[in-house]
Amino acid sequence: MKPAVVLLSGGLDSATTLAIARSQGYEAYALSFAYGQRHSRELDSASRVAAALGAKSRLVLTLDLGPIGGSALTGDLIVPKNRTSGEIGTGIPVTYVPARNTIFLAHALAWAEVIGAEDIFIGANVMDYSGYPDCRPEYLHAFERLADLATKAGVEGKSRFRIHAPLIRLTKAEIIRTGHALGVDFSLTWSCYEPTADGRACGLCDSCTLRKKGFAEAGFTDPLCYTT
Amino acid sequence: MKPAVVLLSGGLDSATTLAIARSQGYEAYALSFAYGQRHSRELDSASRVAAALGAKSRLVLTLDLGPIGGSALTGDLIVPKNRTSGEIGTGIPVTYVPARNTIFLAHALAWAEVIGAEDIFIGANVMDYSGYPDCRPEYLHAFERLADLATKAGVEGKSRFRIHAPLIRLTKAEIIRTGHALGVDFSLTWSCYEPTADGRACGLCDSCTLRKKGFAEAGFTDPLCYTT
Repeated sequence: MKPAVVLLSGGLDSATTLAIARSQGYEAYALSFAYGQRHSRELDSASRVAAALGAKSRLVLTLDLGPIGGSALTGDLIVPKNRTSGEIGTGIPVTYVPARNTIFLAHALAWAEVIGAEDIFIGANVMDYSGYPDCRPEYLHAFERLADLATKAGVEGKSRFRIHAPLIRLTKAEIIRTGHALGVDFSLTWSCYEPTADGRACGLCDSCTLRKKGFAEAGFTDPLCYTT
Repeated sequence: MKPAVVLLSGGLDSATTLAIARSQGYEAYALSFAYGQRHSRELDSASRVAAALGAKSRLVLTLDLGPIGGSALTGDLIVPKNRTSGEIGTGIPVTYVPARNTIFLAHALAWAEVIGAEDIFIGANVMDYSGYPDCRPEYLHAFERLADLATKAGVEGKSRFRIHAPLIRLTKAEIIRTGHALGVDFSLTWSCYEPTADGRACGLCDSCTLRKKGFAEAGFTDPLCYTT
């Protein structure tokens, strides 16, 4: 089995991505980050998802993104709630974390080089969340080109790195159907950006809004408990 | 004055790079990393260099590279010493840290975006240290292309990021002469990978070897104390 690093946040996209990597025969090295996110609860989900889907190894790295600021997920900005429309806003949201996927992929690349993996999986998606610039195919292609130039393994010709984004053009409903078909237990996943004190999903942030809409469109029941 | 993020390790290359950025009229935001390096003493040097050269702001971020491994600078591999030849070896040395500059530049990009800077300075150099893949012009160009695609500021057309590597084709002696001309106090800088318990530079690692050779060629006295 070939090794692959899989970025695993604990949300349903990355859980499905891990299931796809496993279904393609990869030995999965699941990589998560404690980056000061409000919803650090997702890290517990990532741990359970990694175990349930048979990841070979798991690493949680601590990042120091808080001092950089600039995001509602790591700082004092308010997480937007879609109270009236049930639809998310347009444009790049304030939950954007500057250069987050570049930081995540850089660490994934480092780990991939050390374990001798050429393949990195990321649950990036442009369909339901077109706001984030570092989830687009052109960005991921640029990182792939960078990876070979950046590393000893790339320069010495030992590795030709590939960034796999199998969800890139799927809708949230299609992702849920795919994950379901591959046996992902969505009760283990977490999506909400701002959980309540009693541990329930808020039901109103962009991430909850997209998740609820996706389950409804897919025709499945979402196993999470929402306050709204 | 335009703001710029300057990667500042505390070595003489990055100190000279900071001096160049200041001489070009940039307001410098100095960024350093505590990444588990053996020579964390360089962070004290970075602090003194930033103050001496009038950096507007300074940020030290903690990175969690130890668990990734794969380097003599962060792990259990032995730092090579050039005891007999006084010359460094050929090929990419074991002090290579996988994807380090990609990780550093990704954080620099995040900070640049938040402070509204388009310019990032890095003391990368191919002449005296051709081993590190992520110090080459083709790598830095690839990162520059990535930066615009990776960020909200880039995608919205607010910023066009530039990676400045003013030392890229200078020899160590030329770097020392340039820094000297710009008033860099080299006694504040630190280069040794593996300082002795009493706080002196080992004089034998690749970094010491290059530094000593550079000072000799430049015709200046190195203000550091070496054990050898």
